[in-house]
Amino acid sequence: MDKPYVIGIDVGGTNTVVGIVDKRGQILKSGSIKTGKHPQVEDYLDELTGLIEDLTEGTITKDQIKGIGAGTPNGNYFTGSIEFAPNLPWKGVIPFAQLLEDRTGIPVALTNDANAAAIGEMTYGAARGMKDFIVITLGTGVGSGIVVNGQLVYGHDGFAGELGHVIMRRHNGRMCGCGRTGCLEAYSSATGLARTAREYLELKPDTQTRLRNIPAEDITSKDVFDAAMAGDELAKEIFKFTGEMLGEAFADFVAFSSPEAIILFGGLSKAGNLIMDPIRESMEKNMLPIYRNKVKLMFSDLKESDAAVLGASALGWEVRE
Amino acid sequence: MDKPYVIGIDVGGTNTVVGIVDKRGQILKSGSIKTGKHPQVEDYLDELTGLIEDLTEGTITKDQIKGIGAGTPNGNYFTGSIEFAPNLPWKGVIPFAQLLEDRTGIPVALTNDANAAAIGEMTYGAARGMKDFIVITLGTGVGSGIVVNGQLVYGHDGFAGELGHVIMRRHNGRMCGCGRTGCLEAYSSATGLARTAREYLELKPDTQTRLRNIPAEDITSKDVFDAAMAGDELAKEIFKFTGEMLGEAFADFVAFSSPEAIILFGGLSKAGNLIMDPIRESMEKNMLPIYRNKVKLMFSDLKESDAAVLGASALGWEVRE
Repeated sequence: MDKPYVIGIDVGGTNTVVGIVDKRGQILKSGSIKTGKHPQVEDYLDELTGLIEDLTEGTITKDQIKGIGAGTPNGNYFTGSIEFAPNLPWKGVIPFAQLLEDRTGIPVALTNDANAAAIGEMTYGAARGMKDFIVITLGTGVGSGIVVNGQLVYGHDGFAGELGHVIMRRHNGRMCGCGRTGCLEAYSSATGLARTAREYLELKPDTQTRLRNIPAEDITSKDVFDAAMAGDELAKEIFKFTGEMLGEAFADFVAFSSPEAIILFGGLSKAGNLIMDPIRESMEKNMLPIYRNKVKLMFSDLKESDAAVLGASALGWEVRE
Repeated sequence: MDKPYVIGIDVGGTNTVVGIVDKRGQILKSGSIKTGKHPQVEDYLDELTGLIEDLTEGTITKDQIKGIGAGTPNGNYFTGSIEFAPNLPWKGVIPFAQLLEDRTGIPVALTNDANAAAIGEMTYGAARGMKDFIVITLGTGVGSGIVVNGQLVYGHDGFAGELGHVIMRRHNGRMCGCGRTGCLEAYSSATGLARTAREYLELKPDTQTRLRNIPAEDITSKDVFDAAMAGDELAKEIFKFTGEMLGEAFADFVAFSSPEAIILFGGLSKAGNLIMDPIRESMEKNMLPIYRNKVKLMFSDLKESDAAVLGASALGWEVRE
């Protein structure tokens, strides 16, 4: 029997969003619950299952759903588990796919957020028709989903694609949440950009900038964006620094998989040319000559609010029945 | 009709070695010609075709040969061409596969040396049964062949896997042959190791070392190896520096494709634990915690003299007839 629908679930630190998606990538119905409400994962899954039932009730039967795809922090595609996610209330290893499958009777596939984004781009987004590309997510952290030969790169253990944690500064690098120093994520995530802002304010006490109107510890990437858009020079410099670091990193990524495109996704990518121009310049400058002027730099063209759910849902087409 | 043989060709800067190989990876017959003898590629190919005819004559018919696989500097799998190889006498783009196919009537597939090594390891060597691994060749340069999901990573243009040219030192890095500075290859190739020796001798004029018995400009990696094996402390330090740099780089490579193993191939890998011990220590120290103690570090177990030809020959099984 033809199964024309999938369900996409985006498990975020705050909200869990669920959508019913058709083959063209239209979200027919969606809803959300609070991820952090239940200290016990069983209670959370009960509420999630209830939401899925509410969304399908009266319009779609279970038989019409090909699968459920979930994008979660630290989701492992091979095991179907969420493993030691620092920003979720449930500790250790959670066999998320199995638990949800037991409750819904629908096959569940799971991967991490950035991989889900890459699958979404390949299925519905900017990477349609591409076999080799990299999605870089620029949010609280820097994540990545890598596609080679039309397949997502999971690696032998399911944990490939942690490009936010390549080392960009081997000496006196910034502390990273992973416990090491100098990671790309410590500089070029939204939080990294805010750290750069605080650093610049301290190092350049004589520079005029509207960022001084905000208590340093409260500055967010959005504040720096707003200032830059209003013409603030220091704010533009902060974006330049952030983008240049990304460009340096991208040049190395290209030497690995020589992708057709690198696609930016998530928070910081909303900064448009403020971030893209320095990335492009720095990437081309740092790249091995044989790769120059070949790699497309693009923004995700999935609708921001839907992208995470769409990406996760695309995995639902791949489940084994 | 069953075709039980392939031909492997290793095109090196000095010699071109040809071998007839069976399905178990046995080299039945082999021979070689001088690569640099002919300024015209046509003359070279005529001699090469003659050698192939000599090797097969009387024992094997053309019908029994499935294909020819060639590993060449700057070989592009997609186009079958050698493109701008700096160490070959023929300039520009040479449609090597097509030219050889025209002469022999046997289908030819071509890739670069490091990719050929990776295919060889997967087919006959240390990587049998593995789906995700990286081969690093440590010779005059640093090359790489990357396998993901059981497939070689060629990238969208056929030039993926130039891991010798990731940037290890972003400030005051060594000049690299590629025109940039700070590349892994400038430090951790056989020639890079010899440069380190010269640097150390200059920076540490008071350190006793048998390396001072050799004119600095003549020092080779073999000299440093011999000194280290004889207990020379400075020579051991030079290997330690070289290996540590490789370990730092490997930690980043693992964040990309999370391979089951990284396999060392070529010249410097003959240094054994002198190079492997510092690589291992540095890789584990620099790696993101989720990858620690998972990645196997191995030496190629293909017989040194045969490895390049075997690797190239393995590509011969993949040709389209």
